Amino acid sequence: MEIMAANSWGQRFVITSFGESHGPAIGVVVDGCPAGVPFDMALLQANLERRRPGQHGDPSRVVSARAETDEPEILSGVFEGKTLGTPIAIVVQNRDARSADYDSLKSAPRPGHADDVWKQKFGHVDFRGGGRASGRETLARVLGGSVAQMYLLAVSPSTRVVARALQIGPLPIEGEWPTAQVLEMLTQAQREGLSYGGQVEVRVGSPPISLGQPVFNKLKADLASALMGIGAVTAVELGAGVEAARAEGSEFHWRSISDQYGGIRGGLSTGEDIVLRLTFKPTATVLHQARSGRHDPCIIPRALPVVEAMVNLVLADHFLWRLGDRV
Amino acid sequence: MEIMAANSWGQRFVITSFGESHGPAIGVVVDGCPAGVPFDMALLQANLERRRPGQHGDPSRVVSARAETDEPEILSGVFEGKTLGTPIAIVVQNRDARSADYDSLKSAPRPGHADDVWKQKFGHVDFRGGGRASGRETLARVLGGSVAQMYLLAVSPSTRVVARALQIGPLPIEGEWPTAQVLEMLTQAQREGLSYGGQVEVRVGSPPISLGQPVFNKLKADLASALMGIGAVTAVELGAGVEAARAEGSEFHWRSISDQYGGIRGGLSTGEDIVLRLTFKPTATVLHQARSGRHDPCIIPRALPVVEAMVNLVLADHFLWRLGDRV
Amino acid sequence: MEIMAANSWGQRFVITSFGESHGPAIGVVVDGCPAGVPFDMALLQANLERRRPGQHGDPSRVVSARAETDEPEILSGVFEGKTLGTPIAIVVQNRDARSADYDSLKSAPRPGHADDVWKQKFGHVDFRGGGRASGRETLARVLGGSVAQMYLLAVSPSTRVVARALQIGPLPIEGEWPTAQVLEMLTQAQREGLSYGGQVEVRVGSPPISLGQPVFNKLKADLASALMGIGAVTAVELGAGVEAARAEGSEFHWRSISDQYGGIRGGLSTGEDIVLRLTFKPTATVLHQARSGRHDPCIIPRALPVVEAMVNLVLADHFLWRLGDRV
Amino acid sequence: MEIMAANSWGQRFVITSFGESHGPAIGVVVDGCPAGVPFDMALLQANLERRRPGQHGDPSRVVSARAETDEPEILSGVFEGKTLGTPIAIVVQNRDARSADYDSLKSAPRPGHADDVWKQKFGHVDFRGGGRASGRETLARVLGGSVAQMYLLAVSPSTRVVARALQIGPLPIEGEWPTAQVLEMLTQAQREGLSYGGQVEVRVGSPPISLGQPVFNKLKADLASALMGIGAVTAVELGAGVEAARAEGSEFHWRSISDQYGGIRGGLSTGEDIVLRLTFKPTATVLHQARSGRHDPCIIPRALPVVEAMVNLVLADHFLWRLGDRV
Repeated sequence: MEIMAANSWGQRFVITSFGESHGPAIGVVVDGCPAGVPFDMALLQANLERRRPGQHGDPSRVVSARAETDEPEILSGVFEGKTLGTPIAIVVQNRDARSADYDSLKSAPRPGHADDVWKQKFGHVDFRGGGRASGRETLARVLGGSVAQMYLLAVSPSTRVVARALQIGPLPIEGEWPTAQVLEMLTQAQREGLSYGGQVEVRVGSPPISLGQPVFNKLKADLASALMGIGAVTAVELGAGVEAARAEGSEFHWRSISDQYGGIRGGLSTGEDIVLRLTFKPTATVLHQARSGRHDPCIIPRALPVVEAMVNLVLADHFLWRLGDRV
Repeated sequence: MEIMAANSWGQRFVITSFGESHGPAIGVVVDGCPAGVPFDMALLQANLERRRPGQHGDPSRVVSARAETDEPEILSGVFEGKTLGTPIAIVVQNRDARSADYDSLKSAPRPGHADDVWKQKFGHVDFRGGGRASGRETLARVLGGSVAQMYLLAVSPSTRVVARALQIGPLPIEGEWPTAQVLEMLTQAQREGLSYGGQVEVRVGSPPISLGQPVFNKLKADLASALMGIGAVTAVELGAGVEAARAEGSEFHWRSISDQYGGIRGGLSTGEDIVLRLTFKPTATVLHQARSGRHDPCIIPRALPVVEAMVNLVLADHFLWRLGDRV
Repeated sequence: MEIMAANSWGQRFVITSFGESHGPAIGVVVDGCPAGVPFDMALLQANLERRRPGQHGDPSRVVSARAETDEPEILSGVFEGKTLGTPIAIVVQNRDARSADYDSLKSAPRPGHADDVWKQKFGHVDFRGGGRASGRETLARVLGGSVAQMYLLAVSPSTRVVARALQIGPLPIEGEWPTAQVLEMLTQAQREGLSYGGQVEVRVGSPPISLGQPVFNKLKADLASALMGIGAVTAVELGAGVEAARAEGSEFHWRSISDQYGGIRGGLSTGEDIVLRLTFKPTATVLHQARSGRHDPCIIPRALPVVEAMVNLVLADHFLWRLGDRV
Repeated sequence: MEIMAANSWGQRFVITSFGESHGPAIGVVVDGCPAGVPFDMALLQANLERRRPGQHGDPSRVVSARAETDEPEILSGVFEGKTLGTPIAIVVQNRDARSADYDSLKSAPRPGHADDVWKQKFGHVDFRGGGRASGRETLARVLGGSVAQMYLLAVSPSTRVVARALQIGPLPIEGEWPTAQVLEMLTQAQREGLSYGGQVEVRVGSPPISLGQPVFNKLKADLASALMGIGAVTAVELGAGVEAARAEGSEFHWRSISDQYGGIRGGLSTGEDIVLRLTFKPTATVLHQARSGRHDPCIIPRALPVVEAMVNLVLADHFLWRLGDRV
């Protein structure tokens, strides 16, 4: 019976996420997006599609078999193909909310999940599929992040945010994703009730220069918060990351490896590629396969558009912050 | 000539940091600290002392030789030994601001520093010792974090936040800090103009339960932001951290290693110890030894109270958030 | 083509309003409402009904003849009759959005409206019925304010917020509202294309004690902002209001008239009735009757639930602020 | 023993006020002021001087006889005559804090003051001269508002904010202030222990166009909050104010009186003069003359620079908000 606020992200480009996984709908309100941004429905749907499970011939076919048909409805803020500057509300109905599957879980805490912690905190809890703690909430982030991406395309057309898997469980990923080896491992994992985490690199090509603030809102701090806020993430590294611990300074700082600093110095983007590395722990849901009938042997394929969404949101927020502040 | 806002941290327990390294003073305003908290001046001074360089027989004697005598003045918010609930302003004069040392740097950008990036962003810049980008700004964090610590002592007396070095450059730290080996390495580094980073563990013993919010203000996200906001930090890991990438899930989640999750599940503290690991890159200032006469071969000894301060601030903020929210 | 943010209200009990008057829907997201509050759908609908025009035997029958059937859908945040603590999203479809009526206005600025000012600011503007500037946006406030009212009922059951008309144009209101005299005046006004403003008193009976903050978030300051934020309001008075200007102090402060201070001293509620008086200017839309076919000769009857909603929001926000802040 | 936060004002141009009336100092931190603004120390001191009591030949000589010598020290954020963009901390020592005067009040609640309400709320209270509730806190507002004024001068040089008395108690003010009649009345009031409120007009000449946001942060709403947040203010009116209640609409909206709307329509500044009217209640302190030896028979003369400061802060905040938001 405690408050569960904090469903907004950003200071100038702000999203508010809402919706339980098995309630009527998931949605987002984007506030602070300037007027006049071309609204690209195809881009929005492409991002949702990458997050969606169950597609044939796609690595994500090996993830949760739930048939989500995520059709976004734009309720406000867009008129004649452009943003109005008013709040943009986007809603996706939860059509296939098989909450019956979860009834058996009502009293049985699931290992690795936070059910017990939540119950202790909030008292009145929605047990239907994890409610708000479900990975389905990330849909709202992809909706909001897509609008951020549209804004960035309008003001910094060459900037691109791309996340890719570096490693899935014990397998490093090289060359074209998904490798046959990975598909085989995940198919087997699903059959045997195993799950894997891994590592993801997110890279911002041609970022705007001098995004970020020098003390508490360093660009790296806001990115760390945005990315550590994704459920399964256990580590965030910038540039050299954990490897920086062993280096000697005169060597470290004179090296001409461009990714050394990760594109951020003094809290500000330098204009070089921004490079971060994330670690995901293995999915816990897999443990309940027998009971629930749904699970993700590895969420990384579906997590990539979520990672990109969060980075686009941080960049859009700081772009607005940076703009227009000269006397 | 751009705005440099974002000098506040926290949503309910809020600090505002101010002051340039070679200006008249460094200070902080703490707003949102409840009334009635016993104000422990000795605790405040002990924390400042740990951050101060130049002490004999202390590992920090090997760090920057600048003679800082940091005497805090309480300007407001404390009356008859207790907080009033009003803003607590604390100021430390910069007595030994030898800005002349830095005059020669006015036009020479320092490798590894952000001088050039800042100039591009802000136009009008304070070159005196890095101005606001200097490590001296962290003094404000220790001031504010100490008040957060006093608040936590009042409401959760058994909670303790402790940071310790795990590794300095190539040397792992085991047993009593500082080992003779570390002191020898750092002494030599100072002589030869070398510098080292390392790794730090910060552990919260007996933390309050169910701190954190489920979506964007997960406790781990706010901690990541607070810690990645420290200048030299390049990686933040929770619990198993980067090691979680390779693990298989059924093994990972059933293991009975208490630090596995780092004390946070579903974004909320579980009551177990909260455990994070930070990576610091090597100091850049060392490169300019010949010119400036001051440098830190390794900032980790002095960074420990700064790390603790930031964690205390996050805990105090979430403690206030959690309190009183039941119907 | 400027940003139009600021669609959120509150610091702890926060609503985000969205929707254009002639777009698909109007809605609100309530964030920060504690878990466990009984959700009273009948109360919500009763408040919407009072805001709705076109009812027989009701003074609001003389207002805008638009047939709004406002059916709220709860998209999230409520489960088994209680709030979950998660964001509560409520949406009302705009079924009768006769935007054709407004096509003729696309190029013709309407006197008394802000069309020209908005166009200058935002560039890309929604001309359909005023878009976001329309009075229909206040529906979102009634939705959000109703949830605030439910929360207050749970934590302070005797508190009641009631707004009533004191004066309509030249006619003071005494006794039962609406008087025959007022109905006659408004009926004639509608026929002749006239419009009236008036004065409204809002009174909080049995308010919680010591709501408010002493410096910038005085309860009277937050109430003034909430009420002056209603489109047609031109004056906000607390207690004696403008009458306080002429009084001599020793008489003023010793008088035993309870409404003298309006129930707020030093920025804090005293526990006495909180009493404010608002002035509304006459509706401007009436001037376009011939062209648009819709107008309100006086918006005060429909504005009463909006006034109450804003006051409930301020009280809920400050109730959360006050709670749980003792060491 | 409750929290007393909310000592910050503004969203982009933000001040944080601190200091008790009889503690060591009063001060402000200004965050969000862009770099490169010429810092005008003379302007700052002139504003402080207008707020200071006890000057010969000045109407304010009739106000509180406390000899405040308010010498501002700039602790940070200004370098070589310009703002750095970093936080600007300004402190004024309380040299003449005769708290002994107030010892007798420690247990005696003062009628018209909020002592009893505060004690109930906060438990641990600073009784020295009202602590933070004292009018001396407004010094921090004048410090912060002066920086806002400098920023506006840099970006909108023709804009001028001027407050003037319209009425003191029963006497309307026409012609040169102070009239002999007013001086006589106030001198007598001081002798006899009487006090007066009055009315103040604040006018913004040549304001920037389209400041404000359309829904909750209407310019009039933020101004109302800023001005109602001044201790003794009981009413805020925009343009026609309370007079708008009686007017018929077609007459009201077609009238060519420029101050009719007060320079704000649809929540946005139109470029016409912004005109507001405030009502102040009579000072309560006068009642305690015999005990305390200090009182203000009328605070309006000293309140004028405080009113201007708050308006400058709102304008600066919205100027930053408006800037740079075009795609």
